[in-house]
Amino acid sequence: MQLLKERIVKDGTVKPGNVLKVDSFLNHQMDIDLINEIGKEFRRRFPSDKITKILTIEASGIGIACIAAQYFHVPVVFAKKAQSINIDGEVYHTKVESFTHKKVYDVILSKKFLDADDHVLVIDDFLANGCALMGLLDIIKEAGATIEGAGIVVEKGFQQGGQIIRQNGIHLESLAIIETMTDTSLTFRE
Amino acid sequence: MQLLKERIVKDGTVKPGNVLKVDSFLNHQMDIDLINEIGKEFRRRFPSDKITKILTIEASGIGIACIAAQYFHVPVVFAKKAQSINIDGEVYHTKVESFTHKKVYDVILSKKFLDADDHVLVIDDFLANGCALMGLLDIIKEAGATIEGAGIVVEKGFQQGGQIIRQNGIHLESLAIIETMTDTSLTFRE
Repeated sequence: MQLLKERIVKDGTVKPGNVLKVDSFLNHQMDIDLINEIGKEFRRRFPSDKITKILTIEASGIGIACIAAQYFHVPVVFAKKAQSINIDGEVYHTKVESFTHKKVYDVILSKKFLDADDHVLVIDDFLANGCALMGLLDIIKEAGATIEGAGIVVEKGFQQGGQIIRQNGIHLESLAIIETMTDTSLTFRE
Repeated sequence: MQLLKERIVKDGTVKPGNVLKVDSFLNHQMDIDLINEIGKEFRRRFPSDKITKILTIEASGIGIACIAAQYFHVPVVFAKKAQSINIDGEVYHTKVESFTHKKVYDVILSKKFLDADDHVLVIDDFLANGCALMGLLDIIKEAGATIEGAGIVVEKGFQQGGQIIRQNGIHLESLAIIETMTDTSLTFRE
């Protein structure tokens, strides 16, 4: 997605340790016009009318998923990162290791909001080692629902997550794939 | 907002301990059509063209703020609930006590995304004792920015938050105000 790549070049910053910061437009401050274009592009890449739900994970996936959902006309469900006293009843549960925060956390989703009749599109902002996405796919499988695909805004193509997901036969669409990253610059996969 | 009140009556559930669960349409599963109407209503109640930013707090405020922002044509910034290695540079910082989770957490916002030129509308899903909202107002004051108001989806009118905020002269608009809650039922303030 050319508009997104141009924005990453213009406003993204690369930090030592393979950290790409896009917090001025994607995941701390959010440029809603850009995210609207991202939502339209996800719809173009996942035109299926079978999709019944968009699944994401808190926190930075939520806004993108909500804007995108307007083009799919389906509800968003977001998985939560820790046990809450406000989640009652049965929950789907998995564990996810965070690349960013260097820790393992519990991810839960109320069973009320995903079942075997659902056809699910996962949307998230980043894909790196794939742990968060694989956790969400685990939850979909646990629900007996159908995985329609995964839409990612920025994939770090030099980490293993994308390859693992594609090898599992998942329809994965990443709107910008970083091919190489040094401490000061990056290139995109064509 | 009549549509919202009707939805709370239809799909909300009241639990002992003054817990109102609206997780089937507002803050776990999200009904995007309803949230779009909520966004339009916030715009109607805050018609000022001075607003430069919408501020919310992760996680459940983000989707609502993003959908609403489409009617204001301004970016969303969301405060984060814990220190992250991905927040660099200077941050605004406050502490918030969570009614839901019974704990105090740190809330931070990168100084890059809020300054004295900003006119800020705060948007969040719930207002109860007001701690989260007052934390966000603290951050706006710390930035030297102007508070244009606060838009809340559901206010628990029998808790003190709304009263404190209004007494401070803040333009507060809550789309549904719960007047009374028992363990099994609720009434709205007219």
